[in-house]
Amino acid sequence: MANSRRQVRVAVLGATGYAGVELLRLVLQHPRVRLAIVTSQQFVGKRVSDVYPSLAGKCDLFLDELRVERIAPHIDLALAALPHEASMEVVAELVERGKKVIDLSADFRLHDPQVYQRWYRLHKAPHLLSKAVYGLTEVHRKAIAKAQLVANPGCYPAGAILGLAPLYAQRLVQGTVLIDAKSGVTGAGRTGSVELSFSEVNENFKAYSVGVHRHTPEIEQELSEIAGKPVSVFFAPHLVPMSRGILSTMYVELRKYPGDEKLHKIYLDFYRKDPFVRVLPCGSFPQTKEVRGSNDCAIGFSYDPRVGRLVVITAIDNLVKGAAGQAVQNMNLMCGWPEVEGLRGTALVP
Amino acid sequence: MANSRRQVRVAVLGATGYAGVELLRLVLQHPRVRLAIVTSQQFVGKRVSDVYPSLAGKCDLFLDELRVERIAPHIDLALAALPHEASMEVVAELVERGKKVIDLSADFRLHDPQVYQRWYRLHKAPHLLSKAVYGLTEVHRKAIAKAQLVANPGCYPAGAILGLAPLYAQRLVQGTVLIDAKSGVTGAGRTGSVELSFSEVNENFKAYSVGVHRHTPEIEQELSEIAGKPVSVFFAPHLVPMSRGILSTMYVELRKYPGDEKLHKIYLDFYRKDPFVRVLPCGSFPQTKEVRGSNDCAIGFSYDPRVGRLVVITAIDNLVKGAAGQAVQNMNLMCGWPEVEGLRGTALVP
Amino acid sequence: MANSRRQVRVAVLGATGYAGVELLRLVLQHPRVRLAIVTSQQFVGKRVSDVYPSLAGKCDLFLDELRVERIAPHIDLALAALPHEASMEVVAELVERGKKVIDLSADFRLHDPQVYQRWYRLHKAPHLLSKAVYGLTEVHRKAIAKAQLVANPGCYPAGAILGLAPLYAQRLVQGTVLIDAKSGVTGAGRTGSVELSFSEVNENFKAYSVGVHRHTPEIEQELSEIAGKPVSVFFAPHLVPMSRGILSTMYVELRKYPGDEKLHKIYLDFYRKDPFVRVLPCGSFPQTKEVRGSNDCAIGFSYDPRVGRLVVITAIDNLVKGAAGQAVQNMNLMCGWPEVEGLRGTALVP
Amino acid sequence: MANSRRQVRVAVLGATGYAGVELLRLVLQHPRVRLAIVTSQQFVGKRVSDVYPSLAGKCDLFLDELRVERIAPHIDLALAALPHEASMEVVAELVERGKKVIDLSADFRLHDPQVYQRWYRLHKAPHLLSKAVYGLTEVHRKAIAKAQLVANPGCYPAGAILGLAPLYAQRLVQGTVLIDAKSGVTGAGRTGSVELSFSEVNENFKAYSVGVHRHTPEIEQELSEIAGKPVSVFFAPHLVPMSRGILSTMYVELRKYPGDEKLHKIYLDFYRKDPFVRVLPCGSFPQTKEVRGSNDCAIGFSYDPRVGRLVVITAIDNLVKGAAGQAVQNMNLMCGWPEVEGLRGTALVP
Repeated sequence: MANSRRQVRVAVLGATGYAGVELLRLVLQHPRVRLAIVTSQQFVGKRVSDVYPSLAGKCDLFLDELRVERIAPHIDLALAALPHEASMEVVAELVERGKKVIDLSADFRLHDPQVYQRWYRLHKAPHLLSKAVYGLTEVHRKAIAKAQLVANPGCYPAGAILGLAPLYAQRLVQGTVLIDAKSGVTGAGRTGSVELSFSEVNENFKAYSVGVHRHTPEIEQELSEIAGKPVSVFFAPHLVPMSRGILSTMYVELRKYPGDEKLHKIYLDFYRKDPFVRVLPCGSFPQTKEVRGSNDCAIGFSYDPRVGRLVVITAIDNLVKGAAGQAVQNMNLMCGWPEVEGLRGTALVP
Repeated sequence: MANSRRQVRVAVLGATGYAGVELLRLVLQHPRVRLAIVTSQQFVGKRVSDVYPSLAGKCDLFLDELRVERIAPHIDLALAALPHEASMEVVAELVERGKKVIDLSADFRLHDPQVYQRWYRLHKAPHLLSKAVYGLTEVHRKAIAKAQLVANPGCYPAGAILGLAPLYAQRLVQGTVLIDAKSGVTGAGRTGSVELSFSEVNENFKAYSVGVHRHTPEIEQELSEIAGKPVSVFFAPHLVPMSRGILSTMYVELRKYPGDEKLHKIYLDFYRKDPFVRVLPCGSFPQTKEVRGSNDCAIGFSYDPRVGRLVVITAIDNLVKGAAGQAVQNMNLMCGWPEVEGLRGTALVP
Repeated sequence: MANSRRQVRVAVLGATGYAGVELLRLVLQHPRVRLAIVTSQQFVGKRVSDVYPSLAGKCDLFLDELRVERIAPHIDLALAALPHEASMEVVAELVERGKKVIDLSADFRLHDPQVYQRWYRLHKAPHLLSKAVYGLTEVHRKAIAKAQLVANPGCYPAGAILGLAPLYAQRLVQGTVLIDAKSGVTGAGRTGSVELSFSEVNENFKAYSVGVHRHTPEIEQELSEIAGKPVSVFFAPHLVPMSRGILSTMYVELRKYPGDEKLHKIYLDFYRKDPFVRVLPCGSFPQTKEVRGSNDCAIGFSYDPRVGRLVVITAIDNLVKGAAGQAVQNMNLMCGWPEVEGLRGTALVP
Repeated sequence: MANSRRQVRVAVLGATGYAGVELLRLVLQHPRVRLAIVTSQQFVGKRVSDVYPSLAGKCDLFLDELRVERIAPHIDLALAALPHEASMEVVAELVERGKKVIDLSADFRLHDPQVYQRWYRLHKAPHLLSKAVYGLTEVHRKAIAKAQLVANPGCYPAGAILGLAPLYAQRLVQGTVLIDAKSGVTGAGRTGSVELSFSEVNENFKAYSVGVHRHTPEIEQELSEIAGKPVSVFFAPHLVPMSRGILSTMYVELRKYPGDEKLHKIYLDFYRKDPFVRVLPCGSFPQTKEVRGSNDCAIGFSYDPRVGRLVVITAIDNLVKGAAGQAVQNMNLMCGWPEVEGLRGTALVP
C-alpha cells in the first residue's frame, strides 16, 4: 500500500448515510482511490445509485452487507461511517486483520473508556482506545500519518477545537470557554423523525442538549491535551433551518490580550502548514456558505476591550471538514499522499 | 343547538396532527364555540399544550382517547381530523348519535363507494356517502347549511375546484384540464419519514404521484357535477420546500374565449357572495404568501391568444382554506352563524 | 379618548414596512381601534392592499404622505414605524399637538442624548428623551399607562431584557452577561440589498455587528436601571435563514445559585401579572416557532454546576413582541383597555 | 490553441455574478485551463476572493475593468457572463480579434434579429447572429466543436429542450406543449431587490412572466429547428424558495403513443452519446437535488392513457447545466478536449 502509484482499495461502510454519501462524492473524484466496496444496513442488494440517483453512472456498485470476513480481503483501507456503538466491533475486527481504518463514529475518539461509558455506554474494544489517533489533522498530523486507526472528530469538535487550539497552545485562556454552536440539519444524520421533519424545522430555531451534548468530553479532551492541563468548556448547540454548515461562536476570557496583530500572528503561525484553515483578518467573521461543500475551516476573531472578551467564530461544512472531508484528509496522510488530494474543490456558492 | 346565544360544544378529534392543531388555533378565537374535547391517538393523557407549547395558557385541555360513547354526551359537533380509513367508523357512530360532524378526512368525499374503493379501499359506511355533503362552501353552501355530515374537501381539490368552477358552470371548457399543483410540506401531515425530513426536502423540488394522486377523483366528481357531464382532469402535484401553501396552475382549453372583461365578470359573479374568494384583475396572479394563515383563496387568470390557452392560478393555505379554515366556515353555516365568524384574521405577512 | 366605548382613531405611520404591515394585521382585529390613516414614503397614492394583497377587502385605505398637520386632526394616537433618525421630528410634532405616540424606531429609547449621539447621530428632539417611557410593558407598566410618548423597544432588547430582568432585579448577576442572539431576516426590514437577498441568506448562517450592534446601549440602559447600578453586556447577533423569530441564548455568571426551584419561583413571581410571558419548567428551552405570530415571550433556563454558568434562553417573534405586538400592548395600557385586547391570537404552528 | 498539452488562457467576464462565480468554481478545477483574467463592473480593483471568500487561496486574482483591447492579448478564450444587451458589443469585439467566445447572455441565442428586437431591443451586432452557434451541446455538438462564437442556452431552455427534443425529432408531438417550469432563485442573478429578498421569497411560491417570458422564443426556435417546422410552446415559469435547480414539467399531446418501452428507447437513443443526460426508467421522475452542483440533466416521463397526455419532467442545476457547466462543456468541445473534462464532479447531496 506504500506504493502510491497503484490505487488503494477502499471500502465505505455505511455508505447510504449522509456522511457515507459525502465520502462517496469525495472518494469518486480522488485519483488514487479505487472504491471497492460499499455497505449498507438498510439497502443491501440495491445499487447505491438506486438510493442516491445523483451517483448514477458515477458509482453503480451494489450495496453489500457488512461482513468483515468477506470485505477484508478486497480492501486496503476502510472509511467507517457507522452509528456509534455499532462501529466499535467492526472496526476492531478490521484493525485485527491489519486494515487501516478511519472511523467516523464517536467510538474511538475518547481515550478514557470510563469517559466513553459515562457519555455513551460500556466500550467493547477498550484496548484500541490508546491505539486510536484523534483525527483532527491540524493537531495530530504526525501521529495520524503513522496510525492504523484514526478516530475522525465529531462535527462540532472540529469547528470548536480549530478555533480554540492556538489560544490554549499559547496558554492564553482563563476560565471556562463558552461555545455557542449552530448546526445545519444534516448533522443529525439521515433519519425519519417528526422532530427533524421539514414542517418542524423550517422557520424555526432552537437550542438542544444545552450543556449535556456528547461532543463536550471530546472537545475537553483535546483542548486539555493542548493546554497541558484540564480544560472545561460549556457547549450549547443549536439547530439552524439549513442543510449544511456549523458556525461556532466562542466566548473566551484571556489572561492577557496580546493585541490584534499579535493574536492574528499566533493564529497564522499555528496554521501555517494547514491548507484547509483560513484565518481571517482581525474583526472579520466567516459565514457557513463560504465553506459549503469544501474542506475548509474559516476562523475569525475580535476582542472587545470594553468587556474583556475575545470572540472567536469558525465556520465549517459539517459533512466535509466535520466528517467526510476530514476523513479523506486523514486518509491522504495515512497513505503518504498530498494532504489536499481529492479535496481541492471550491465551495458551492451561491 | 339552534340557539346562537349559547356556545356550541365542539370536539376536535385528532387534535395533534397539523390539521388538528390548526383547528384549535381557529376554534380558540371563535366567539361561539366552546372547545369541550380534544383527542389524540399518540398523546393520550398529556395536555395538548405539552405537545404544542404555543397553546400554553390558551388551551391546556388533556388529550382523551377517542371513544365515541364517552365523547358524544359532551359535544354538539365534532371536527374530525383523523387519517382516512380510520375516520369512517368514528364518523358513522357520531352521526348515528345525532351529532353534527365535519370530517376532514377523505372518507366521505366521494359519493360512489366503487370509486372510493378503487382509490382507497372497501368503504365501511357506504350508506353515509349519499348523506354526506361535499364541504366546499362556495359550491354547496345551501346543502352544507342543512347537513348533519359534511365531508371537508381535500387541500388540492379546494384550490383546483375554486379556480375551475366558474368555467365549467359556464360550459366554457373543452378537453382535459391540466392541473399542475405545488404544495408546501405540511400537506403531508405530521409525520416522521426520511422523505419528509428537512435534509431531503430543503433545497429540493420534485413532482410526486403524477397522474395517480388520490385527489384526482374528488376533483373530477365535483367538476362533473358543476359541468353537468363527466369531466376528466390531469393532476400533477409537486412538493415545495416551504411549510404552508398551495399554488395550482391550471391550463384550460376553452370552447370560445369570452374576452378578458367578460371572463373577469364571470368569476366575480360566481363568487359575489363569497367572502373568502378574491378574484384578481385579469393578468394578475396570486402568491401563496398572501393567503398564509388566512382562509382566503386568491384567483388570477390570463388568456394567451397565441396558443389558445387560459391559465388559471389559485393560491390557498393548505391548512386553512384547504383544511381547518374551510371546516370552520362549514361549521358556521351548519350552526347558522355568520360565515366569517372566527375567520377574520389577516394572512401572516411577511 | 378616556371613554373606552368609542373607538380610538389610530394612524399607522410607515405602514408598508414589515413592522407597519404587522401593525395593520393586529390593529385590524382590534375591537376598540379605528384605523384612520396609513402613510408611506414610497407608495403614496396607492391603496395599502395594492402593496400587500393579503389586506385586500380588509384594509383598502389609500396611503397618505406623512404630513403631521394634515394627519393630526383625524387621529387620537399614532403608531410610528418609521426609520430611526427619520422618526424623531415627526414624533415631536405629534407630541406637541397632544397626540399619544408609540414610536417603534430607536429615536426615543435612550434617555441620554450623548449615548444616542454616540450610537446614532445628533438628536434633534432631546427635550423629549426624558418624557419618553421605554415601552417594555413588563418592566414599565405603570409609567406606560400614564405616558403620552412611548419608545417601543428594539426587537433584540425585548428578548434579552425579558430573560435577564428577574436576575438583575434580584441582584444575582456578576460579571458581564453574554448575549448570543439569533434573528430571522425580517428584523432587517423590507429592503432590497444583495446581502439580504434570498440567494445569499438561504442555506447560510453568520454573525454580524458582533460587539458593536446599536441595540447594546438599549439593553444596558434598561438592565442598569433594574440592577440599580451600571451593567454592561456583550451582544453578538446572528442571522438565521428564516423569516421571523429571535432566540436569545444568554450566559450568566451568578453571585450565588439559588437552586432550580427557587430560581423558577423568582421568574414566576417577576412575571406573575404578565399575560404574554411564559416561564418554562427548569431545564426546558423554547423554540422560535412556538411564538411565531403571537405576542408571547417564552423563557427557559438551566444551570450547569460543572462550569458555574446559568443559561437563559428566550424566544419571541421579532415582529410581534419585538415590534408591533408590543406596541399594541402599550396602546392598550395607554388607552385603559385590557392588556391582551387584539393580541389573543395563537402562534401560527406549524 | 489546438495543442491540448499547453493550457488555454481563459477570461471570465462578469466574474462576480452568480454564473460568473460558478464558472470560476468549474474552471479552477479544470486541468487544461489557466484562468488569466477576471472582470467585474462593480468590484474593479478588488480581489475576486474579497467578494467571494470561498475562493480565498484558490483564486486571488484582481478584478479588472472590462476593456477588450487590454484583455484580448492575454487570452485565448472568453467566457462572458455579462447581462444581456451589455454583452453583444464586448463579444463582437472579441470575435473580431479572433478570440473564441462562449457568451452566457441571451444576446446571440436568437438567429433572427427581428425576434431579438421584439423580446429584448435593437440588436447591435446582427451580423454575428448567423455566425453564433446555439450552445446546447446535445443538439449542436458538431457545430459547436467548430464554432468561434457559441451562445450558451438560457437556463429554462436547457431544461425544456432536453426534455422535448427526442419527441420533436421523432415527429411525435401535436399541438402546443405546455411547459410549467419551477426555478430556484439564483436564476434571477446576484441582485438586490425587495422582490428577491429573503423575507419575500422564503415561504412563498408564485408564478411570474406567465406566457411572456423571454426564454419562450429561444425554446421555440430550437424545437422548430429539430421538428423541421414551426413549433409554439406555452411557457409558465415559477419561483421556488430554494437557491439552485430547475424542474420543468411538460405536458405533451402525442400524435400516437409508441408505448413505454419504445419511447424509453427513443430517449436513450437520442442521448446515447451524451455523458450528462440521464434518462430515467419510464414512470420515474427526477428531483432537483440529484443534479445540484453537477452538469447533469435527468429526464423522466410517463404517459397517461386516460387523458392521452405525456408528462416529461427534467431537472437541471440552473447554474451548471443551465449556465456555467454547459459553457465549460462547450469550451471542451471547442478546444478538442474530452467533453467531461472539469465536469466530473458529483452533485452535492444532501
